[in-house]
Amino acid sequence: MLKLDDMTGGFADLDEDARKRAAARLDNLTKPKGSLGALEEMVKCLAAIYGTDELKIGKKTIFVMAGDHGVAEEGVSAFPSEVTPQMVLNFLGGGAAINVLARHVGADVKVVDIGVAGELETGGLISRKVKPGTDNMTKGPAMTKEEALEAIKVGMELAMAEVEAGAKLLGTGDMGIGNTTSSSAIAAVLTGSSLDEAIGRGTGIGDGALKVKRDAIRRAIELNRPDPTDPLDVLSKVGGLEIAGITGLILGSAKAKVPVVIDGFISSAAALVAAKISKKSTGYMIASHQSVEPGHLKVLSELGLKPVLMMDMRLGEGTGAALAMGLIDGAIKIYNEMATFDGAGVSKEL
Amino acid sequence: MLKLDDMTGGFADLDEDARKRAAARLDNLTKPKGSLGALEEMVKCLAAIYGTDELKIGKKTIFVMAGDHGVAEEGVSAFPSEVTPQMVLNFLGGGAAINVLARHVGADVKVVDIGVAGELETGGLISRKVKPGTDNMTKGPAMTKEEALEAIKVGMELAMAEVEAGAKLLGTGDMGIGNTTSSSAIAAVLTGSSLDEAIGRGTGIGDGALKVKRDAIRRAIELNRPDPTDPLDVLSKVGGLEIAGITGLILGSAKAKVPVVIDGFISSAAALVAAKISKKSTGYMIASHQSVEPGHLKVLSELGLKPVLMMDMRLGEGTGAALAMGLIDGAIKIYNEMATFDGAGVSKEL
Repeated sequence: MLKLDDMTGGFADLDEDARKRAAARLDNLTKPKGSLGALEEMVKCLAAIYGTDELKIGKKTIFVMAGDHGVAEEGVSAFPSEVTPQMVLNFLGGGAAINVLARHVGADVKVVDIGVAGELETGGLISRKVKPGTDNMTKGPAMTKEEALEAIKVGMELAMAEVEAGAKLLGTGDMGIGNTTSSSAIAAVLTGSSLDEAIGRGTGIGDGALKVKRDAIRRAIELNRPDPTDPLDVLSKVGGLEIAGITGLILGSAKAKVPVVIDGFISSAAALVAAKISKKSTGYMIASHQSVEPGHLKVLSELGLKPVLMMDMRLGEGTGAALAMGLIDGAIKIYNEMATFDGAGVSKEL
Repeated sequence: MLKLDDMTGGFADLDEDARKRAAARLDNLTKPKGSLGALEEMVKCLAAIYGTDELKIGKKTIFVMAGDHGVAEEGVSAFPSEVTPQMVLNFLGGGAAINVLARHVGADVKVVDIGVAGELETGGLISRKVKPGTDNMTKGPAMTKEEALEAIKVGMELAMAEVEAGAKLLGTGDMGIGNTTSSSAIAAVLTGSSLDEAIGRGTGIGDGALKVKRDAIRRAIELNRPDPTDPLDVLSKVGGLEIAGITGLILGSAKAKVPVVIDGFISSAAALVAAKISKKSTGYMIASHQSVEPGHLKVLSELGLKPVLMMDMRLGEGTGAALAMGLIDGAIKIYNEMATFDGAGVSKEL
């Protein structure tokens, strides 16, 4: 059987010397120190992760992990479960929001069936189905620990293979009708927030469905009693296959020493699971946007991450990660292309 | 003599029908309604401004307005005034942050000497100097009303000529040592905020200079008694030439019916002056980022604008506007390239 410790041991330390060298170079560019804020933080973060102060724009890949949720049958979403496979086909056809925004920033999109209910045989899809959707968490655990581990392993393997193939920056994305329900459950358990703080309207449900959703999460937590000190227990009992896959993607990024851009609420819930598995993994995470899901900011603050985009988005798929990748490329260009005080003959601070 | 009313009359109404048609088309794309948040708001805003629901990515230009501030001699900045002309040369050489970020998003940069102290004769510079720097506002008005009007006119003319030459999206930028001092004064007077709410550390001054800055603004306001109901009075007494130029740029964008992306604190103070001159101009503004200057959010909220970037930036030059232009292009692509529910065979909401 897979063991979590075997999978997650041996993350490299960040290179604090490279971070310092990058910071020194930033301070010599023609701008007040630190005045480019998050762009400068991104540069320093990249230097520490890559272990060098020579930064280049490289290949970017966003993984969209797709999985279904048994809890959707409770009526927690504005959309039927059939939308999950339909959207997978849309991703493969290039017509979804993530395709458009990934093209806009020059990133590749890889779509993974890690847990879609029903058969999906189609060109371009990465078929790594662990299980055809989770079980309904209001009636028992969403999946077994073994299944959750297997899904984490899928994510790790994909991340590491992608980096092996040349990717320098990964992004997370999700598709799964019902997955804000799972993510809210994870957020509530792992941050110790109340359900009201952790639950939002997802794809846009009304007041009635919101009550149903809150009730479903409450029942799932009461029935399964996920252990807040055991991230794998939480992930398997109230999580999702695509969420576990994203957790793996993040851990795999850390293993492969590349930064990973965390999309929205679902990806952040997965990131929190990764952080609880290995605190070190947070050093490899770059937050993208702050979504309208109320639990999102709680999760980000627990992770110690600051989002850079505030666009009231709530789509997932990796759309926020894609937009943030465009900003990261801008940060690398700032670092490489700006003039220095001496070079440009500009006076320094008084 | 120039008259404000002659310059600012006759702004076109926004096309609410085009906005509605764009909204309807957005609602038919494969995503939950409204789930792309600010990207969708941008699309609707562009449609209303351009008066069409056919949107294309067009030529983008960021104007960097440069001017000096007499109040700098009080010691309100971390940098000496000589940095203003030095940075103008850096802009023209392509080595400043705004050059890098504008290239990143495919925007042109035009640099305007609207009030730099001292001579600047150099290729590529748009020389429209109204006055070689403002006077020290702690000793009298920064400039006359005629000079402020002239600077507004420069901005309007440049914006309208640029649109005439094919630009579809303008952005604002500033350079002027001492200009957060003027902007804080404008913000305090026009929003009715206390000085503490309106004043920040600008390029990064320490506690001592912060006290000097607060004191200089307090004295300037006490001496000049700018009339909060008369934006031109405020602009001339405690403003700046580049700030007036940006106000003009914004009014000119509205006149020419193109959206204008508002950069940071300085540009937002100029935008507030524009809004007080003509409320209609706010319909043409798109906010970019929320800077670390405490007065910035006050000004944006008075304008009714929501920034999309939260990057702790405080450089100006148009750097936030450039990054936001990349997001606006992404929004246009979303609108034009995403599949519809019918086209992609995706089920709609339950």
